[in-house]
Amino acid sequence: MQTGTGRFVDLIHRKKEGKALEPREILTMIRQYVAGEIPDYQMSAMLMAVCFQGMDDEELTALTLAMRDSGETVDLSRIEGIKVDKHSTGGVGDKTTLVIGPLVAACGVPVAKMSGRGLGFTGGTLDKLESIPGFCIGLSEDEFFEAVNSTGISVIGQTGNLAPADKMLYALRDVTGTVESIPLIASSIMSKKLAAGSDKILLDVTTGSGAFIKDLDQSRELARRMVAIGKSAGRETVAMLTSMDEPLGYAVGNNLEVKEVIRTLRGDGPADLKEVCLALAGMMLSLGREGLTYEEGRELAEKTMESGAAYDKFIAMVKGQGGDLSYIENPDRFERAAFQGEVKAKEDGYLVSMDTEGIGITAGLLGAGRDTKESKIDYSAGIIMKKKLGERVQKGDVIAELYTADKERLMRAEAYMGACCQISDIKPEPVKLVVDIIR
Amino acid sequence: MQTGTGRFVDLIHRKKEGKALEPREILTMIRQYVAGEIPDYQMSAMLMAVCFQGMDDEELTALTLAMRDSGETVDLSRIEGIKVDKHSTGGVGDKTTLVIGPLVAACGVPVAKMSGRGLGFTGGTLDKLESIPGFCIGLSEDEFFEAVNSTGISVIGQTGNLAPADKMLYALRDVTGTVESIPLIASSIMSKKLAAGSDKILLDVTTGSGAFIKDLDQSRELARRMVAIGKSAGRETVAMLTSMDEPLGYAVGNNLEVKEVIRTLRGDGPADLKEVCLALAGMMLSLGREGLTYEEGRELAEKTMESGAAYDKFIAMVKGQGGDLSYIENPDRFERAAFQGEVKAKEDGYLVSMDTEGIGITAGLLGAGRDTKESKIDYSAGIIMKKKLGERVQKGDVIAELYTADKERLMRAEAYMGACCQISDIKPEPVKLVVDIIR
Repeated sequence: MQTGTGRFVDLIHRKKEGKALEPREILTMIRQYVAGEIPDYQMSAMLMAVCFQGMDDEELTALTLAMRDSGETVDLSRIEGIKVDKHSTGGVGDKTTLVIGPLVAACGVPVAKMSGRGLGFTGGTLDKLESIPGFCIGLSEDEFFEAVNSTGISVIGQTGNLAPADKMLYALRDVTGTVESIPLIASSIMSKKLAAGSDKILLDVTTGSGAFIKDLDQSRELARRMVAIGKSAGRETVAMLTSMDEPLGYAVGNNLEVKEVIRTLRGDGPADLKEVCLALAGMMLSLGREGLTYEEGRELAEKTMESGAAYDKFIAMVKGQGGDLSYIENPDRFERAAFQGEVKAKEDGYLVSMDTEGIGITAGLLGAGRDTKESKIDYSAGIIMKKKLGERVQKGDVIAELYTADKERLMRAEAYMGACCQISDIKPEPVKLVVDIIR
Repeated sequence: MQTGTGRFVDLIHRKKEGKALEPREILTMIRQYVAGEIPDYQMSAMLMAVCFQGMDDEELTALTLAMRDSGETVDLSRIEGIKVDKHSTGGVGDKTTLVIGPLVAACGVPVAKMSGRGLGFTGGTLDKLESIPGFCIGLSEDEFFEAVNSTGISVIGQTGNLAPADKMLYALRDVTGTVESIPLIASSIMSKKLAAGSDKILLDVTTGSGAFIKDLDQSRELARRMVAIGKSAGRETVAMLTSMDEPLGYAVGNNLEVKEVIRTLRGDGPADLKEVCLALAGMMLSLGREGLTYEEGRELAEKTMESGAAYDKFIAMVKGQGGDLSYIENPDRFERAAFQGEVKAKEDGYLVSMDTEGIGITAGLLGAGRDTKESKIDYSAGIIMKKKLGERVQKGDVIAELYTADKERLMRAEAYMGACCQISDIKPEPVKLVVDIIR
């Protein structure tokens, strides 16, 4: 395998024929790929073969650990207590991190969160936080540890060169049609989570029209594979399968979502957002505190939210990271978009389904997301949903309000979003928000 | 699709999902790949997706024609009559071209054959011809046409830059595990055949342990796909499925095979070689002469072989291309190998099966083939089989004689070939040589 063109082709053949690769072969493959000894044209053929033939749990663990070990790993030992990381596979209007972080920290479990930026149709936690004027996500390692140990929570941008093999492979997958593959997605997520140094991992695997993976069985399989990797790597890992058949809550877009988070922490949030957050927080608490069950964790989270302690922790976090508290105390101060539009019901009936990814794309068209890594975000752009799935609407009712700084964007977004909401005579079954828990 | 990294990924996705590509998309793909506008890492992912999802006949024709049109095409119009090309997918001891060429030419159908060299475990027609001292395969185009028009036959090396896209794709397939794919094999062969300019095409698709494709159903599928491409391209194409479960005839290796060809043309050849040659020649004649059926063609071929006219035509060809006729007239003059070994039966019983590819590899170990394009061939090296499938053998009987110029090679070859012949108590069914005809 020295030149990459020699024996590596035999490995491609084996995978093509549906046979398993040895863990040491996978380790060598990743090392040689990162070192430039296996060319992209061989790796892309291997990745496509994996898309068709899959990988068993042993192969998958070997791949994930090899990617983790391709770069730095974070040492969180200077933070006291059991560190639990929460990761979402992404969704539209998914602001759970901003609610759960303060809530869990208020219950005494430290939250040392390194988050990513948004790209594509789902927004990133960092972008949402930066819509709070003054909020700084660029703390040094010392400042980060200090913040967690003193206030119990800090959310910053990823530092260090974590899992560079994953970055290289992802860039190749992106241009070779090999992104959609359960084992490749699972190893990509888990290699970064394992490098990030937490003691335990909670995975929020979204499923439905606004999730990266829309099919329930596929989502369940992704959850199962990631949990298996975590266990093999010696980290307790739990996955919650949560519904993403409509935006979570009502707000989609950066400062619109922050305002909804503030309402939720004050006890006045949307029912679906609250339910998902309490479930995820309950699970994080049961992982972070010995002897606490999931049900006990959920109860503790609910009480802590009602007591106002979670809101206080949010205030402490924003203050600790330089954010202007006057915006939190008076959310009307947040910048408002210059232009506003509406999407209306075209007929009478029940709102039966949404193209939630399409709603995320609409938010991007309005200026809430990034087309490329260099794009500038309009923090005030986005969508406020006025109706939830299952609600009765009359023709002409406003289903959603659209916000943007740009009139042309508004017209394009209205046209796009017009096709995203389906109305029918038959009242749909209520949505189950927490679909399953996989341990 | 301008940069190759833009829209081409969508095409990879479509193929990955099992959908058909449009003919114009395939044409653009090949043009851009040859122009360097689609990178190897995208093409190898596409090729792997094709290995799994296949291509329909329309896609396959578009791919083949795009590869044909990527380079020069041969104009055979200066040769009178209907030109019929015969192509074999390869086998061990496959010297049919050297028998059929003179035989068909002796019946008045012109044979303007451009042949390839051997690489891997099957020998090439050019190498066999060059084992005749003085024989020149490097005629100019004018000399080639002149030779065919005067003697009715000429066999030369391929000239011109035929189907360069196929050369590029084959080199990529070779290192990315994407060689084994019926549509990719079919388009590779047919792009070169269509570029070579004949009016009609006869494909000898071998099947069995010595063929490139060993499984009968797969071989039949390859034949069916190539015939479909030929028809779509407006060239009458027929495939004969022939058995390659043991070497054809007894001789494997360059001058050993030429000597067997001479015996066959003189009417004293092995029964299996004679039968396959008469079948293929009969089909070539029925394609090359209006109104002649396959059965009539086969009868004509048999009579022409018996009459000695085919042998005379072989003499004329060798003379026309500068070969030393004294070797043809007295085959004992051919160089003999310095070392000789034997492979003996290890038990009593019937010879029930052979690893024919293994026998081809043994011939290579003896020096009859090339490891790389630069390797020098030992024309006297090779194997003479002493037993055919189904024959009764006693322990210690010689199954094969091995010939080489190198004692070390002999030892390695004896060890390798020892495992290639299986003996059993149960007499096997006789082998059917012409398995099927696909039009």
